[in-house]
Amino acid sequence: MKKNYVMAPGPTPVPEDVLMEIAKPIIHHRTSQYQEIFKRANEGLKYLFKTANDVFTFASSGTGAMEAAVVNILSSGDKAIVVRGGKFGERFYEICTAYGIEAIPIDVEWGKPVDPAIIKKTLASNKDVKAVFATLCETSTGTKNDIESIGKVVSASIAILVVDAVSGLCADDLKTDEWKVDVVCSGSQKGIMLPPGLAFISASKKAMEMVSKSNLPKYYFDLKEYKKALDKNDVPWTPAVSLVRGLCKSIDIIKEEGIENVFVRHAKLANATRMAVKALDLELLSISPSNAVTAIKVPPAIDGQILVRTMREKYGVTIAGGQGDLKGKIFRIAHLGYMVEFDVLTAIAALEIVLKELGYKFVVGSGVSAALKAFTG
Amino acid sequence: MKKNYVMAPGPTPVPEDVLMEIAKPIIHHRTSQYQEIFKRANEGLKYLFKTANDVFTFASSGTGAMEAAVVNILSSGDKAIVVRGGKFGERFYEICTAYGIEAIPIDVEWGKPVDPAIIKKTLASNKDVKAVFATLCETSTGTKNDIESIGKVVSASIAILVVDAVSGLCADDLKTDEWKVDVVCSGSQKGIMLPPGLAFISASKKAMEMVSKSNLPKYYFDLKEYKKALDKNDVPWTPAVSLVRGLCKSIDIIKEEGIENVFVRHAKLANATRMAVKALDLELLSISPSNAVTAIKVPPAIDGQILVRTMREKYGVTIAGGQGDLKGKIFRIAHLGYMVEFDVLTAIAALEIVLKELGYKFVVGSGVSAALKAFTG
Repeated sequence: MKKNYVMAPGPTPVPEDVLMEIAKPIIHHRTSQYQEIFKRANEGLKYLFKTANDVFTFASSGTGAMEAAVVNILSSGDKAIVVRGGKFGERFYEICTAYGIEAIPIDVEWGKPVDPAIIKKTLASNKDVKAVFATLCETSTGTKNDIESIGKVVSASIAILVVDAVSGLCADDLKTDEWKVDVVCSGSQKGIMLPPGLAFISASKKAMEMVSKSNLPKYYFDLKEYKKALDKNDVPWTPAVSLVRGLCKSIDIIKEEGIENVFVRHAKLANATRMAVKALDLELLSISPSNAVTAIKVPPAIDGQILVRTMREKYGVTIAGGQGDLKGKIFRIAHLGYMVEFDVLTAIAALEIVLKELGYKFVVGSGVSAALKAFTG
Repeated sequence: MKKNYVMAPGPTPVPEDVLMEIAKPIIHHRTSQYQEIFKRANEGLKYLFKTANDVFTFASSGTGAMEAAVVNILSSGDKAIVVRGGKFGERFYEICTAYGIEAIPIDVEWGKPVDPAIIKKTLASNKDVKAVFATLCETSTGTKNDIESIGKVVSASIAILVVDAVSGLCADDLKTDEWKVDVVCSGSQKGIMLPPGLAFISASKKAMEMVSKSNLPKYYFDLKEYKKALDKNDVPWTPAVSLVRGLCKSIDIIKEEGIENVFVRHAKLANATRMAVKALDLELLSISPSNAVTAIKVPPAIDGQILVRTMREKYGVTIAGGQGDLKGKIFRIAHLGYMVEFDVLTAIAALEIVLKELGYKFVVGSGVSAALKAFTG
């Protein structure tokens, strides 16, 4: 018998109660029944995003929310700064370029966080920059950026701060309003514990002013249409009704635990994973590890792709490999969303079993012991 | 006790087996397990679309597929003809305009199909038109257009034919390849019997050549990225995994019935609905009624919005009202997707009950009798 464990940084496991909610008979979206659900979802999103501003929901993947941020805020010929410290920073850069935005990259070595002082310097020498794009948790490297400090730097300029929190939300604290983050992008299939298919963006007053002036072409992701509809508790296009129902249930679960406790839990799971990694004499990729996902360097003489494949195909434990230049060089274990201590122990146990099979030298059990010590200590 | 019946033209009811499939534990999309599902879904879509060409799946609503058609095929400064015979024809026009396309509208009275000869004439006097946008079933009026004849006209020009079959697919026959339709747009929440959240477009060779040259800005809906991924049985962004699983199940159900039998069933349901409408001395809006949805004029002295609301709130039967200028003037009963004879009888029975309550003069039972006669005759 093989059981399946999804421990990659998205899609993450979906609680059974949420799955049941999603499986309910379909309802129509232009009804008071849906409006009630939509209203609850929107209030809940504000709680998750720690914002008093509107949070908009799209039927799309997280990339759609990233595109929505770019095309709704900027105008043709605008300049933007994009922090590129991994695959998802690169994606913001690509989207900007696709829409003719002059994107100034701040390249950061993969696995390192961006130094807010460099953003400050770049802003100072480009006073016409309209937006800074940064990442809370760069999923491709498991690196957390210091959004609070970046917020201080950007809010002192005319630019707005856009943060990709697709994988970071609910795992790494993000005080959207307090830290002066204008736009936060996220997706359903990570910390929010839903299947993929919904994406979200919050927008500050400063951002909404830019939205009203933006002239980049758009239709499906046109925030003005979503805003007009939202003010009537409505949607411009047919929403992903069943996922929005699931969203309400996920939010209920998060509210019951309490968002601060959710962060504490993620911190504990991430810490135990790091302790296990250390005990196994493996090395973290990131010097500023996120609580969403841990990226680990593949030890010499081990084939990273075989490691990941064996864990999944032989033992049912799906973790992620490396992306881009890191393909085969790292593997990533998520502790994100609907996860508890025993999930971390499962991931580490599967890792130990496969490392042993692949001939890596270590004391079997040292990983799970270290994790358990972290949980009990 | 009140039971709920969704009889609006989308979202339509989802078969219980499909709901159960959607509720299965999440799986990761970069695995052979997902690739197998994705491959089956793609093969099934070709069967539904009656095409040998690729059909691409987006995580979005149907409007996303319509935008994808525009931004992937056309280039800046291009000219297009848009048939505007209802709200969804208008949507194509709006999307074209949002992207700076010179859109030549062919305005058709709502409820009437477009005359292919007018398209021919318009093409003849605009030889540089790159695309013609038409609608299989104009959902807002329940009107079916003669796509076969339009295909003959357009294929004789340099333009490609893009058809919105969001609500028409699986209800009104659409022989994509045989009728020379280059691009077909559809969505999950209509004839395909899924919750909303997936959208599809097929693309002919002629269309893909235009895709390779198109210079309109895009990222999330960039068909080149989807094509590159599809050739490796992969996806560019995280797909709506659970809905794609459901899609496989829906396709299985449709294949078991046989797509030709699905059309016959829809024709029977639509015919019985029309017979009931006639027996109740009500008038159809459309002179070319679709088999997906029947639009009926609200009789004088009856408030159309109260009619629709009472059916839903008092009797649990959700039908749709009119959109745009037709608000309050028509109501629309869908017989689309997971529907059989008894669903039509339920809708007509609820309609009779509410018409009686609102003081409309008719012989109670004449509608359901006429429908039943149509089914048995």
